[in-house]
Amino acid sequence: MGNVAYQTYSAEHLRTFCTQVFETFGIVPEDATLAANVLITSDLRGIDSHGVARMHNYVDLLEKNEVNPHPKLTIVRESASTATVDGDNGLGLVVGPKANQIAMDKADQVGTGWVSIANTNHFGIAGYYVLQALERDMIGWSMTNSTHLVAPLWGSERMLGTNPIAIAFPGAQEPPIVIDMATCAAAFGKIEIARRHQKNIPDGWAIDAAGNPTNDPHIVTQSGALLPLGSDREHGGHKGYSLAMMVDILSAILSGANWGPFTPPFIVNQAPAARSVGKGIGHFFGAMRIDAFIDLAEFKAQIDDYVRTLRATKPAPGTAGPLIPGDPERECEQVRESEGIPLVMSVVETLRDVARRTGVAFDR
Amino acid sequence: MGNVAYQTYSAEHLRTFCTQVFETFGIVPEDATLAANVLITSDLRGIDSHGVARMHNYVDLLEKNEVNPHPKLTIVRESASTATVDGDNGLGLVVGPKANQIAMDKADQVGTGWVSIANTNHFGIAGYYVLQALERDMIGWSMTNSTHLVAPLWGSERMLGTNPIAIAFPGAQEPPIVIDMATCAAAFGKIEIARRHQKNIPDGWAIDAAGNPTNDPHIVTQSGALLPLGSDREHGGHKGYSLAMMVDILSAILSGANWGPFTPPFIVNQAPAARSVGKGIGHFFGAMRIDAFIDLAEFKAQIDDYVRTLRATKPAPGTAGPLIPGDPERECEQVRESEGIPLVMSVVETLRDVARRTGVAFDR
Repeated sequence: MGNVAYQTYSAEHLRTFCTQVFETFGIVPEDATLAANVLITSDLRGIDSHGVARMHNYVDLLEKNEVNPHPKLTIVRESASTATVDGDNGLGLVVGPKANQIAMDKADQVGTGWVSIANTNHFGIAGYYVLQALERDMIGWSMTNSTHLVAPLWGSERMLGTNPIAIAFPGAQEPPIVIDMATCAAAFGKIEIARRHQKNIPDGWAIDAAGNPTNDPHIVTQSGALLPLGSDREHGGHKGYSLAMMVDILSAILSGANWGPFTPPFIVNQAPAARSVGKGIGHFFGAMRIDAFIDLAEFKAQIDDYVRTLRATKPAPGTAGPLIPGDPERECEQVRESEGIPLVMSVVETLRDVARRTGVAFDR
Repeated sequence: MGNVAYQTYSAEHLRTFCTQVFETFGIVPEDATLAANVLITSDLRGIDSHGVARMHNYVDLLEKNEVNPHPKLTIVRESASTATVDGDNGLGLVVGPKANQIAMDKADQVGTGWVSIANTNHFGIAGYYVLQALERDMIGWSMTNSTHLVAPLWGSERMLGTNPIAIAFPGAQEPPIVIDMATCAAAFGKIEIARRHQKNIPDGWAIDAAGNPTNDPHIVTQSGALLPLGSDREHGGHKGYSLAMMVDILSAILSGANWGPFTPPFIVNQAPAARSVGKGIGHFFGAMRIDAFIDLAEFKAQIDDYVRTLRATKPAPGTAGPLIPGDPERECEQVRESEGIPLVMSVVETLRDVARRTGVAFDR
């Protein structure tokens, strides 16, 4: 963690804390546990920006009654392999896992299941949902739209979210391939880290409010925009832009949620969207039963061969060779399961504040 | 077309020529027409690399009996929403449209259809297949793996194909959003154009055989590799690499085709793959009935609003503002439908050669 002060907590400690905090808002224990699990999975896997660091944002939303602590999910339309779900303005951390389960249950019945969800809120890491599918020997898909931070290629303002895509494939002896990627060139969190360290950001990450390239992280967090994956036309910025649109449409237009620049902000007291074009934000989940396509053992054996083949690629100079998607997160999880989750002191302070506001003990 | 010599032919002329050429190999008229349509759609839409410019490669394959002119597609496994298809080593231009139809027919029945295909060959442009789905008011998905040209991030050799992803969404008054993108930073065709013009290629497109960045197109075509979308770690090269893997697995591991570095070459007399891990190459198609999720008219009205909203983005300096995916191809199609398809003389020469070899008149 460099020279940043931090304190380490066990996953179990943080899970219990988050569960109890959610319960103080009247969230039923089953849902509170579900939500806490999504957050702790993120911290265990090293995606620190999406775990307990966001707990105070969720508490803000619950305190201001901006999310419904008792959501009743409704299937507003369905077919044998599809469902459109209204999340009743619940926490995405609760609505997400339940909607994902609908997709997996449909896959059990007819081979695949596809669920688009409106009237929901931020759902944590996209990767959580595809890990659930792996447990059922399914290929899971997970997407969500989010508050606008990214400019379209050739645009000069924030119009699209960082709109992540996750998908995972199980191996037999080898660990699974777990893809979980935002569709922008660099995460907003990386801009914030550069700003805190007073460092320039690389070319190709962001633009200023006039649409010109910038290396100044202060400008980006205040008024600029992130660039899509590919950055500029020459390097395929139209492709990242296209993927962000795809996620937006599958998650929000297919479900009747808000999209693009009208996606509501995650954080309380941020400027509301210019107009409403739907309900809440949107997610999209898919589940594919592998044995609906091919013998499961054969598939897993091929994935093992695939993983080993790619690991055996001749390394680029100065590297140890290609990784397999999911490697860094899995390695982090192994360490943090045994050694605990290091939280920077600024995050610890927000959790202590949550403890004061909810009466749940944090440091014991 | 700059100062390159070319000759213009009507789409109808080229379609008839290709159909008749395919028929000389005993391909039934229905299949020959299907294959020709895929190629001409590519030329009409301005994707010159994937249209009649490849006709001589298909003829090479047919002459050497490397593809089966009379393929019988077999569904080797299926569920209500899925099928795994053996393409019987047919032309991808014939197997692809038929497998895509299976996906769409399943969507008619249960909301969505998903088909993975092994034992097939190059299928033309991925975009063709999603345009077919649009005609049935479905969201179409199309992917294929292909001969290895792309290095994984932190690798220094060709391990993955350019593995494209296509998906399309229909509007009402506005034209559809048609995404069709390779998962590498820049197409191999762009490297070849730079080589012909003796020009350097930009940073971020490719590496040499030692894995170092290179700007020399000769090196790349001889022994180097393309880089994935995102180019390097800092700009998200792991994301393009992940997407290429996703396409490979859905197209080839799910179906039992060859994958990664073992994907067979498209061109006759190229070095065969180091080993066989399946049959032929693989495609993957999906079809989602929009009205399985939401009222069709409501969806299309929202897409219109979405397209207009993104077009109204404040333009980046020196640009006319963001395009909508599919704009350039649709505009090209309108021009070429009326004015004809300009072919560079080197392509015309290959077609004249095909004419000589097959006895089908080309220039009339």
